[in-house]
Amino acid sequence: MDLDRSPLAMPFPDLPAIAGVTLRVARAGYKEWGRCDLTYAELAEGTSVAGVFTRNVCCSSEVELGREQARAGRARALVVNAGNSNAFTGYRGREAVEQIMAQVAERLACDQREVFVSSTGVIGVPLPKDKARAGVSAALDAAECSWEDAAATIGTTDTFPKGAVARAVIGDRTVTLAAIIKGSGMIAPDMATMLGYIFTDAAVEPAFLQRLLSEANERTFSCITVDSDTSTSDTVLAFATGKAGNAPLASFDDPGADAFAAALNDICRQLAQLVVRDGEGARKFIEVAVTGAVSEESARKVGLAIANSPLVKTAIAGEDANWGRVVMAVGKAGEPADRDKLSIGFGGHWAARDGLPLADYDETPVARHLQGSEVRIDVDLGIGDGQATVWTCDLTHSYIAINADYRS
Amino acid sequence: MDLDRSPLAMPFPDLPAIAGVTLRVARAGYKEWGRCDLTYAELAEGTSVAGVFTRNVCCSSEVELGREQARAGRARALVVNAGNSNAFTGYRGREAVEQIMAQVAERLACDQREVFVSSTGVIGVPLPKDKARAGVSAALDAAECSWEDAAATIGTTDTFPKGAVARAVIGDRTVTLAAIIKGSGMIAPDMATMLGYIFTDAAVEPAFLQRLLSEANERTFSCITVDSDTSTSDTVLAFATGKAGNAPLASFDDPGADAFAAALNDICRQLAQLVVRDGEGARKFIEVAVTGAVSEESARKVGLAIANSPLVKTAIAGEDANWGRVVMAVGKAGEPADRDKLSIGFGGHWAARDGLPLADYDETPVARHLQGSEVRIDVDLGIGDGQATVWTCDLTHSYIAINADYRS
Repeated sequence: MDLDRSPLAMPFPDLPAIAGVTLRVARAGYKEWGRCDLTYAELAEGTSVAGVFTRNVCCSSEVELGREQARAGRARALVVNAGNSNAFTGYRGREAVEQIMAQVAERLACDQREVFVSSTGVIGVPLPKDKARAGVSAALDAAECSWEDAAATIGTTDTFPKGAVARAVIGDRTVTLAAIIKGSGMIAPDMATMLGYIFTDAAVEPAFLQRLLSEANERTFSCITVDSDTSTSDTVLAFATGKAGNAPLASFDDPGADAFAAALNDICRQLAQLVVRDGEGARKFIEVAVTGAVSEESARKVGLAIANSPLVKTAIAGEDANWGRVVMAVGKAGEPADRDKLSIGFGGHWAARDGLPLADYDETPVARHLQGSEVRIDVDLGIGDGQATVWTCDLTHSYIAINADYRS
Repeated sequence: MDLDRSPLAMPFPDLPAIAGVTLRVARAGYKEWGRCDLTYAELAEGTSVAGVFTRNVCCSSEVELGREQARAGRARALVVNAGNSNAFTGYRGREAVEQIMAQVAERLACDQREVFVSSTGVIGVPLPKDKARAGVSAALDAAECSWEDAAATIGTTDTFPKGAVARAVIGDRTVTLAAIIKGSGMIAPDMATMLGYIFTDAAVEPAFLQRLLSEANERTFSCITVDSDTSTSDTVLAFATGKAGNAPLASFDDPGADAFAAALNDICRQLAQLVVRDGEGARKFIEVAVTGAVSEESARKVGLAIANSPLVKTAIAGEDANWGRVVMAVGKAGEPADRDKLSIGFGGHWAARDGLPLADYDETPVARHLQGSEVRIDVDLGIGDGQATVWTCDLTHSYIAINADYRS
């Protein structure tokens, strides 16, 4: 099926080149489609890497290997296959990944553990080794391509290419972060998974880069949901080439570390929100802001319970200020809450405070807010200082159409 | 909106009278509808009671009070209000419940804690005391009604009345269990919650009745899901009048206790499945059978992860044997599983075994199975002896229509 461009799509931003990163794409032909489907990024020697991966226990070989490789902290290349996730394919799938790693390592004369591989698409079909070998060969010899080309090539059911940029000043150097991501279901393992790649010219020690990425992940990628279904392939990798020439960051004691952490967090949030904007069937972008929880973690869980509730998501799709459904979702989250201290609002207008509907509640401004394409749900639990913001989209007929009306 | 009768509906069964139980209905007019909406069941002196209630922390006053009353173990009456759930209404809602308890207790000359009240419908609107008082008065003086009348009167968005019957032999007596239930979303707090009532003429001590009901609940009501949203009002009560004259059951050492437990489990499973058959937008009844888990509890969690997955539910709606989505759901359940020992099948036909797609997999019989209205998903984790069966329905355009296309 051909999918219309999401009404919440954003134009592709102007991404600058990152010193030490070269992008190329090629056609491996994993599916019957007339487009490139293999993305190759070559990274300068000495590039640090960090990664966060799906917790789905039925994860792909790519995820298993990538987790191990990221621990070693060094990267020279990234290969992304689109159209076949290679998940649930046993030893045959693993062989295909190892073949790609060896092929690239031979060309770059590097350790094959420095070659990262991701795959996204249908599951249960081992990645065809012959197509992979020819595709990698073509990519290694291809001309350099743009960020937008790479962003489009890693996509599957995505309806628009997604990129983001951020900058930070470290000492006397300005470092740049550029990133691409794909994903439109939070995950449909036979057709869409979330894969994100962040490239920076900053010099950052691997262990510190991992710490910063893990922390950013908690407040960004872990705070989005489209349909509550967790991919077998979700992967976010951050590569730091060090070409900006800053004094390498190794801890928060280093000058500029806070600025870099903020920029990394910023670019992760941008990427995460772009995935929600391409959520399957999405017509409205929803921000759920939870305050007054016993902790940040508790606030995030309450936010996700709301963002994952089909009844809340369909209410927003129907532009219905149905705060009762939000109360229900708060209550089912399994987190500390006190019904009689709970307040619920939309777009800055409270509908209920301290466990009671507002006596003078005026639905007019709320109804107007819900008619827009950006909706905010405010929840104050009133029992602590923990807060968190999560992002999701509405649940519409198009989600059903995409996932039920067509055979995959 | 008027809802069409579910295509999975069952005819109302022939329920016998239960000695010690008298049913009456009346019109309180909680909503603008031309039907009875208040159900009253009078129970003989000495009736035991047990209950299981929602774990939603934003529960209604009815649930808070009912939980406390069930602990005392004795009941004389039940009042069910339909059209207003009285949830999230603070002290005003609680006053309305206490008024009903006092009014009935005065008529029966009993302790008001022996009068149980449930309410279901819109939330955030205190139950109107004047309508409740007039409705209860009318019910107390109304003629006896049938089980089907009572089942229809407790309903809200239900598309068919639901009842079940079971029998057990205790010593030389045959005891009978008759039950009614309502619910069509696993819960939409502004319009539908699950309320179930089981009546038996058996003599059962309250503490033992509670134990049996709690155990049955784990394998029946806790094993169904329509949309993963947990009501603020879910309640199941079991009343035992003792009129059958059997030697009272107090433990599993008593003759007939096993038979009664089996009958109670049977009637609970019937009721639970009826709710799924009236799931919002349901077109297919889905049984998920999980074997080979590390424990029964683990198997149940894996089953519910599958049954709650929007991607699995839309695949079944689309009659798509998408076992990759089942793999994904197993993996995200957070329970012990080994990708390489996992087997997935539909209707008794395996699609993947031991972590690999079947080489000679023939989709023809599977496709035929999925075209029916009763679908079975088989999952063998291959790592233990734990097993569980859960029930759900598919996720269709009608679910979106019911919950998004109409303002509530």
